[in-house]
Amino acid sequence: MGSRIRIAIVGYGNVGRGVRHAIAAAADTELAGIISRDAERVKREAGGLPVYAKEDEKSWSAKLGADVAILCGGSAVDLPQQGPYFARFFHTVDSFDTHHDIPDYFRTMDGTARKAGKVSVISTGWDPGLFSLQRVLTDAFLPGSAHYTFWGKGVSQGHSDAARHVKGVKDARQYTIPIEKALERVRSGENPELSTREKHRRLVYIVAEQGADRERIAGEIREMPNYYADYDTEVVFIGEEEMKRDHAAYPHAGFVLASGRTGDGNKALTEYRCEWGSNPEATGCILVAHARAAVRLAREGRKGAFTILDIPPAYLSARDGDELRRSFM
Amino acid sequence: MGSRIRIAIVGYGNVGRGVRHAIAAAADTELAGIISRDAERVKREAGGLPVYAKEDEKSWSAKLGADVAILCGGSAVDLPQQGPYFARFFHTVDSFDTHHDIPDYFRTMDGTARKAGKVSVISTGWDPGLFSLQRVLTDAFLPGSAHYTFWGKGVSQGHSDAARHVKGVKDARQYTIPIEKALERVRSGENPELSTREKHRRLVYIVAEQGADRERIAGEIREMPNYYADYDTEVVFIGEEEMKRDHAAYPHAGFVLASGRTGDGNKALTEYRCEWGSNPEATGCILVAHARAAVRLAREGRKGAFTILDIPPAYLSARDGDELRRSFM
Repeated sequence: MGSRIRIAIVGYGNVGRGVRHAIAAAADTELAGIISRDAERVKREAGGLPVYAKEDEKSWSAKLGADVAILCGGSAVDLPQQGPYFARFFHTVDSFDTHHDIPDYFRTMDGTARKAGKVSVISTGWDPGLFSLQRVLTDAFLPGSAHYTFWGKGVSQGHSDAARHVKGVKDARQYTIPIEKALERVRSGENPELSTREKHRRLVYIVAEQGADRERIAGEIREMPNYYADYDTEVVFIGEEEMKRDHAAYPHAGFVLASGRTGDGNKALTEYRCEWGSNPEATGCILVAHARAAVRLAREGRKGAFTILDIPPAYLSARDGDELRRSFM
Repeated sequence: MGSRIRIAIVGYGNVGRGVRHAIAAAADTELAGIISRDAERVKREAGGLPVYAKEDEKSWSAKLGADVAILCGGSAVDLPQQGPYFARFFHTVDSFDTHHDIPDYFRTMDGTARKAGKVSVISTGWDPGLFSLQRVLTDAFLPGSAHYTFWGKGVSQGHSDAARHVKGVKDARQYTIPIEKALERVRSGENPELSTREKHRRLVYIVAEQGADRERIAGEIREMPNYYADYDTEVVFIGEEEMKRDHAAYPHAGFVLASGRTGDGNKALTEYRCEWGSNPEATGCILVAHARAAVRLAREGRKGAFTILDIPPAYLSARDGDELRRSFM
């Protein structure tokens, strides 16, 4: 299929590293370089690769030679700025995941990308992303069906960070755990109304500072609004060694179920489940597949913002249509 | 969104009836009429609806006023003829499911539809269809992953028919059953090589004719090549009453799993599962969503053959892009 797709990574944290792994694994892509606001650290870490400081626009815009940039910043602060900024220079792919703000972000990115003649694939990964696709898919053919999303068992960075801010906490790792009984009720086809507490519970491992009041720490975590108060939360104190040994990875998982009826009341149920040993690596893989799609859309002369819902699935694949029909249909 | 999509049903068996139910459930579609080679029977059954004899091309081509036709014939004999024939008159959707012949069928339909300026969505339903999409999706972002498809528990019409042809058999109903141990091995991430016998077993309910030799019947079924010989098959004799009471429905189900690794060997697994109380009704619902997509593709000026892999998922939905981004991303 000709030359490889050259991908730039913008932002080199966990997801950026995941994207780098994914580029190495995808035979039709190659890494053009990394743009970072902490170029010195990244140069040390990503030895030998072209690394550019974010503010050195003149250098990276002239020298990177990237077909597409994958924006690996966070959704709270980074992407709302990085998205529209980089969409002026490159086709982009990002994992903007503040669900409530996706319509606004889409409009902003659509305007910028259209003006620049670029393609911007936004809000992809596994949720939003694969899970969004699954929700839309079943809703499309089962009118009136209800959809349910469960996350876990896996690490939530946001909840870990929140627990880390409690006084006396040295380190924290939070696992979101779906409640099996709720999953079973959905699977049965009863279409239950489920409260927040009925769907997930939270398990937090804490390394406390010496002499800290563990009871107070546990209480403050359990009662923290937004993050923990609406859930049954278990707080477990462990040592630093154990934290390092057993909780260094970022596993995650999740479920999307949709449940409806056909004809005169026959059950119709779909369930999509994923399980990732490394959440940022899985996200990186999904982003790279969308970089491939962005380039194909651009080659067709398309421009503006796209989500996974707007992209023919075959565009995500490195295989051509003949092979897909022969081996995957 | 303007007027409703007018859908013609070609062939009024179980799937045709499923499509009729699905049209009634989808607020943006309406039934234009039915084309059947047994118009008299269908007129009696589908009282009040416009029914046309297949051979009366002059009438239905002039009067139906359909935006798209859903072809509900079987894949062995009907669709290879019906597909190219009706693609000259209508945008079409079909569930051609002889996996091995899909590339050829695609080429034929693509040529005919292009020439006629029509859109033909082929080989959709749940497998091929939803399952094809799931296989491609994970393969696209997890290079080197292995995919596994399991069917059941559910009724296979082909296997039921085969058993019905054994001498002394009055009626038969075959259930395909996935073997839980094989599913668990795939879920564990070991990427096993699985033989046909290890993946599925078969359970056949038989109503025997009076005085028939049950041992011979069971033996002949178990040893039937292609259909049963490669599986562990259990044959259970029941009475006519029980057959009618417990085995009149057409439930089906299935699983697509894909399993690979990210980074330095982290597990990555996806599993899609569906469960249908009525297989033909579920298929009908999926076909109707694709009829919606066919009309949208045609409105964009597209023509030729498409599979689910070539269609932006949002085109399957009756909701617009804004609503999908707001409520489903």
